[in-house]
Amino acid sequence: MTVKNAFYAQSGGVTSVINASACGVLETARAHSDKIGKVYAGHNGIIGALREELIDTSLESDADIAALKHTPGGAFGSCRYKLKDIKTHKAEYERLIEVFKAHNIGYFFYNGGNDSSDTAYKVSQISEQLGYPITSIGIPKTVDNDLPITDCCPGFGSVAKYISTSIMEASLDIQSMCESSTKIFVMEVMGRHAGWIAAAAGLAQREEGGAPQIILFPETPFDKASFLRRVDEVVKRDGFCAIVVSEGAQYADGRFLSDAGVTDAFGHTQLGGVAPFIANMIKSELGYKYHWAVADYLQRSARHISSATDLDQAYAVGKAAVDLALAGKNAVMPVIVREQDSPYKWSVGEAPLAKIANVEKKMPKEFITEDGFGITEAARRYLQPLIQGESYPPYKNGVPDYVKLKNQLVAKKLAHSFNV
Amino acid sequence: MTVKNAFYAQSGGVTSVINASACGVLETARAHSDKIGKVYAGHNGIIGALREELIDTSLESDADIAALKHTPGGAFGSCRYKLKDIKTHKAEYERLIEVFKAHNIGYFFYNGGNDSSDTAYKVSQISEQLGYPITSIGIPKTVDNDLPITDCCPGFGSVAKYISTSIMEASLDIQSMCESSTKIFVMEVMGRHAGWIAAAAGLAQREEGGAPQIILFPETPFDKASFLRRVDEVVKRDGFCAIVVSEGAQYADGRFLSDAGVTDAFGHTQLGGVAPFIANMIKSELGYKYHWAVADYLQRSARHISSATDLDQAYAVGKAAVDLALAGKNAVMPVIVREQDSPYKWSVGEAPLAKIANVEKKMPKEFITEDGFGITEAARRYLQPLIQGESYPPYKNGVPDYVKLKNQLVAKKLAHSFNV
Repeated sequence: MTVKNAFYAQSGGVTSVINASACGVLETARAHSDKIGKVYAGHNGIIGALREELIDTSLESDADIAALKHTPGGAFGSCRYKLKDIKTHKAEYERLIEVFKAHNIGYFFYNGGNDSSDTAYKVSQISEQLGYPITSIGIPKTVDNDLPITDCCPGFGSVAKYISTSIMEASLDIQSMCESSTKIFVMEVMGRHAGWIAAAAGLAQREEGGAPQIILFPETPFDKASFLRRVDEVVKRDGFCAIVVSEGAQYADGRFLSDAGVTDAFGHTQLGGVAPFIANMIKSELGYKYHWAVADYLQRSARHISSATDLDQAYAVGKAAVDLALAGKNAVMPVIVREQDSPYKWSVGEAPLAKIANVEKKMPKEFITEDGFGITEAARRYLQPLIQGESYPPYKNGVPDYVKLKNQLVAKKLAHSFNV
Repeated sequence: MTVKNAFYAQSGGVTSVINASACGVLETARAHSDKIGKVYAGHNGIIGALREELIDTSLESDADIAALKHTPGGAFGSCRYKLKDIKTHKAEYERLIEVFKAHNIGYFFYNGGNDSSDTAYKVSQISEQLGYPITSIGIPKTVDNDLPITDCCPGFGSVAKYISTSIMEASLDIQSMCESSTKIFVMEVMGRHAGWIAAAAGLAQREEGGAPQIILFPETPFDKASFLRRVDEVVKRDGFCAIVVSEGAQYADGRFLSDAGVTDAFGHTQLGGVAPFIANMIKSELGYKYHWAVADYLQRSARHISSATDLDQAYAVGKAAVDLALAGKNAVMPVIVREQDSPYKWSVGEAPLAKIANVEKKMPKEFITEDGFGITEAARRYLQPLIQGESYPPYKNGVPDYVKLKNQLVAKKLAHSFNV
């Protein structure tokens, strides 16, 4: 019996450390070439499997694979593509199995968030139904930090470090200028459904009540009057006010502030513009001069300031995925287990995909202060370890020396194509 | 005769390395305590001198002064305050001299851009007129890189490194996702009058024509049709298009794109919103899904990724300012002299303030490619050395360990206050 090949794919929004998970998968698989043959990577994620566009990772050098650890983005391409319901769209699943069969693939490693766990779970089910055995393992990844069971999600710690560092720096900037110039700085961060990323900004506070003095969470219904009152108090006390606002900040009735906000020159409502909306509100009502920033993709791709802890965990879950597969496990995901807050200790555990698929972990209520504008000690205890440590990429000519893989596709074996 | 004290002030928008210049001034002055007494720093820049709010830097430890080298923002506070015309507002200048006299100040070190050079020059003139000798030395600083004579301006190299690194990272992110999701990423950068900062984005290109594929400079009149044509070509060729746009991008008639752009919920035109404007234009006309980012203050305060070359130069001009003063020079500014492109060699020279005051250095036409959307080899040769080298701050609890000075004011000696 020949050894089975493996298929690895990246799914959903990428992070600054998702390639470290890929590195963990590939290096571990290479170390077990007696049990795992080639690792094929999906060109643009699961779409690559459906289209039979498989990248032959065996053509990449060990050095280039190692360099994935310091390279952001998705090295093989990712996608936003959720496999549809298995009852109504069985053809999609059959196509997957057909491609896996054609290329002697016996292992499926799927690196993503909630939707991806669901897909990995379904693939494990369909493989039973169709009688072609596939070992299906999920690998956690999401800057949203919203997967259940795992203590945290690889990708989140690095965004948290970027956000806390950036707002600390910008706050020092505005503080220097506030006597005669800008008094308000608003920074918009990701997190459509939960305030995990916004909460990380609280780690920038150098003292009780320090900058950023106000954080607007999706979890706290936005009340204009109390918000403006607080802004004014802070400016009168500190001379300036640094504000971090989640893109998911919303009114009590669930309307996003960003939807109520800015229209463009063509009259369209503009998404993701909650920072300018808040800044203009303050200017209109209180008259303070403002600046605002929207970090957008910069925050989740900022490998230059990734958290070493996050990076280690991203690699570890990639490695553990292969270890679990080799140990005969199926339909599971390696998860991060927190053993101790301080000094921080963690290990890798496992959880059934069935319990992870489509479950969203909310931020606990006790992480937000009573006034709704800050984080509590409990939040700090949880968040602090996740941003620990620096792990800088190498630089060349003054910019990071990120690797570019060959990404050569293997020859197709199937006669017909599949429309995605 | 007792030794004279010195006055140091930070002026205008701060940078991630202006405190390194302060460190150069303070450490060099401390090393010459036989010639320079105390160094007083202006609380919030020159306003501090006018209000007689002088920070006694002698109360800061050597370690804290050294830590200024890795701390962004303006450690003593800065301001946007230009001294008015000497003929109509002589009282302001007389007040300065009065404060200097009261505190036995014989040296004036002014750390800023164009306006500050003008002020430092005027102070040297008025001191002659009023018969109170002041040695007045300018210290270059501006992310805008628009001072004449000096090869570059401390502060610029670090912004350039931040911008090139950030757009490289975000481009890898969007490239991974473009098959099924976002195809356009627009990043807005500073530079109201010149495209120096936008040009730095070109250093992120990993190959000819690579991302960012389009840069919009203030120097290139914006032509909607040719811009959209190029965007479409790039998306069809590469699958995605990363665009860097200067906040100063403008139409042929001089109107800023940002003014033509976005209005807020209150109907006001919104400043600094050229990224969303461009992104929406592409969506409306070409239908591509987009994301956009506005780095704003994050770019100029990002000490976590400052250029080591920039940092060294910022320190060097601070040190040279004191050395020049001690050598009996007056009304001059230390400047960066480029001796060689590659390997890069530089030294510190000097220039008369009279030749620097109010002169703006434009970006040479030959730095922009003929099509107007990129940078040339000449630009690359100029820019490359300025982002060389990394010099990371120390971290504590996962965030940079930036110093906070005592900033204790000295007792006032003058009976009357002065309204600023």
